[in-house]
Amino acid sequence: MKISVSFTLWLLLCAVSAEENTDYLQTQEVAAQLKTEVDKLKTEVDNLNQQLKVRQVAFSASLLAGGKSIIGPFSKDTTLIYKHVPTNIGNAYNPTTGVFTAPVRGVYHFEWHLTAEGDGSHASGGWLVKNLQNLFVAWEYQAAGFMSSSNGVMLLLEVGDVVFVRLAANTLAFDNGSHPTTFSGFLLFPM
Amino acid sequence: MKISVSFTLWLLLCAVSAEENTDYLQTQEVAAQLKTEVDKLKTEVDNLNQQLKVRQVAFSASLLAGGKSIIGPFSKDTTLIYKHVPTNIGNAYNPTTGVFTAPVRGVYHFEWHLTAEGDGSHASGGWLVKNLQNLFVAWEYQAAGFMSSSNGVMLLLEVGDVVFVRLAANTLAFDNGSHPTTFSGFLLFPM
Amino acid sequence: MKISVSFTLWLLLCAVSAEENTDYLQTQEVAAQLKTEVDKLKTEVDNLNQQLKVRQVAFSASLLAGGKSIIGPFSKDTTLIYKHVPTNIGNAYNPTTGVFTAPVRGVYHFEWHLTAEGDGSHASGGWLVKNLQNLFVAWEYQAAGFMSSSNGVMLLLEVGDVVFVRLAANTLAFDNGSHPTTFSGFLLFPM
Repeated sequence: MKISVSFTLWLLLCAVSAEENTDYLQTQEVAAQLKTEVDKLKTEVDNLNQQLKVRQVAFSASLLAGGKSIIGPFSKDTTLIYKHVPTNIGNAYNPTTGVFTAPVRGVYHFEWHLTAEGDGSHASGGWLVKNLQNLFVAWEYQAAGFMSSSNGVMLLLEVGDVVFVRLAANTLAFDNGSHPTTFSGFLLFPM
Repeated sequence: MKISVSFTLWLLLCAVSAEENTDYLQTQEVAAQLKTEVDKLKTEVDNLNQQLKVRQVAFSASLLAGGKSIIGPFSKDTTLIYKHVPTNIGNAYNPTTGVFTAPVRGVYHFEWHLTAEGDGSHASGGWLVKNLQNLFVAWEYQAAGFMSSSNGVMLLLEVGDVVFVRLAANTLAFDNGSHPTTFSGFLLFPM
Repeated sequence: MKISVSFTLWLLLCAVSAEENTDYLQTQEVAAQLKTEVDKLKTEVDNLNQQLKVRQVAFSASLLAGGKSIIGPFSKDTTLIYKHVPTNIGNAYNPTTGVFTAPVRGVYHFEWHLTAEGDGSHASGGWLVKNLQNLFVAWEYQAAGFMSSSNGVMLLLEVGDVVFVRLAANTLAFDNGSHPTTFSGFLLFPM
């Protein structure tokens, strides 16, 4: 009799334990699945933060750090080195070379604004150059007066691609403390 | 006596099970809440990824695929078809029609740079057009020399809105291998 | 005898409970860790949503709400109040003062396009001004014809910094229903 009572109790205990173990396993399984999903989300959120962080590339520069000067005419195309740099987030523009170097693969915007006083024989013209390739030109010619031309472009750049402005051979640029001759760019999105 | 011992044991078992069941239920509840929150986060991260992905719209084009040419003057406003397309991320600009079609609702930037040689009687002028509406114009007139004008605009566009540049009636545009006459745009953010 | 059987059973119960408790604890610990991580992710996703939301700042304006007019020449530099405002997402540009006020710390793009008819004695020139500082100028002078100049700049602004265009003393601006004289800007990214 005492054995049968204990045995009944034992069966009961096993039954309860089995049921509880199923609960355990289910809860553990849910927890394991959640952990996998949370880890995946963490990676994705890190990527998003990274994407937004690397977007922080933007610069603006004008030709002269001080004074006023006519640049050119030169006998061949010549890189313009913009030395007054009020904005250079990400330091991708180098004011000692005039060259912007893409820090990440992505789509960038550039704009360049050229001015010069007309001397009766020289235009004012400057190409945006990507690596060795002339892309778009800003160009104006007036015999007299003060000329102003602009252009802009969207470019997909690979890491390390260089972009700069080249003053066309036999043309003029001008800058002074009002900063009319400028070069600006920014990363729109990484790819 | 043997029954009372077993009964005490039974009570104890029930007490332990009850406590454990409370733990189970709490843990299960926490797991269920976490699952709801993780699912919500997944949706939000998907939305963020989607938002950043749809931002990838940017193009730049100049008028001529090759050679050099004077375009105009025409007796009426005429859509400019920019055929040299170095950048067209998202393919929203159509180089056979000159028309940009908004792929998502959002705020876009457009800029257009017009040039032409002065012939003594025609200006150089072009409107940015949204659907049927002239927005801003780039315009210059010089009797001689080489004219250069630019304009730019931010626009909230609905999906399917079209944007293009229309050369004003009786005005001139010019392009050659240096690509002075250009049209560029990009999506700044979706809304 | 009956006591020894019950005691064996009791030991067994304790053993099972101990094992189960370890499982409980582990599962509870995993759940608690997950909760911490999920809460952290929620904060990060909220920040990302916020970051993308605050980016929604963009405006474009031209000088005249209607009609056509020559603005200037004035004896001193004068703020241009652009009254035709087709786009003003975020309402950071104020059309009654001509002033853009930065709603968040971040990097902004501005561009301004100036036009005027040459009258033989006045140029057309306008500075972008940040707070009290002239930054870059758009400038052109031709004795006759219709002048067009542009400039653009990227700027890191603090909350509350103001940006506007100032027509240079003794120079001219012009606008009409074609809207050649414009001022546009947008937030590129918050910092």
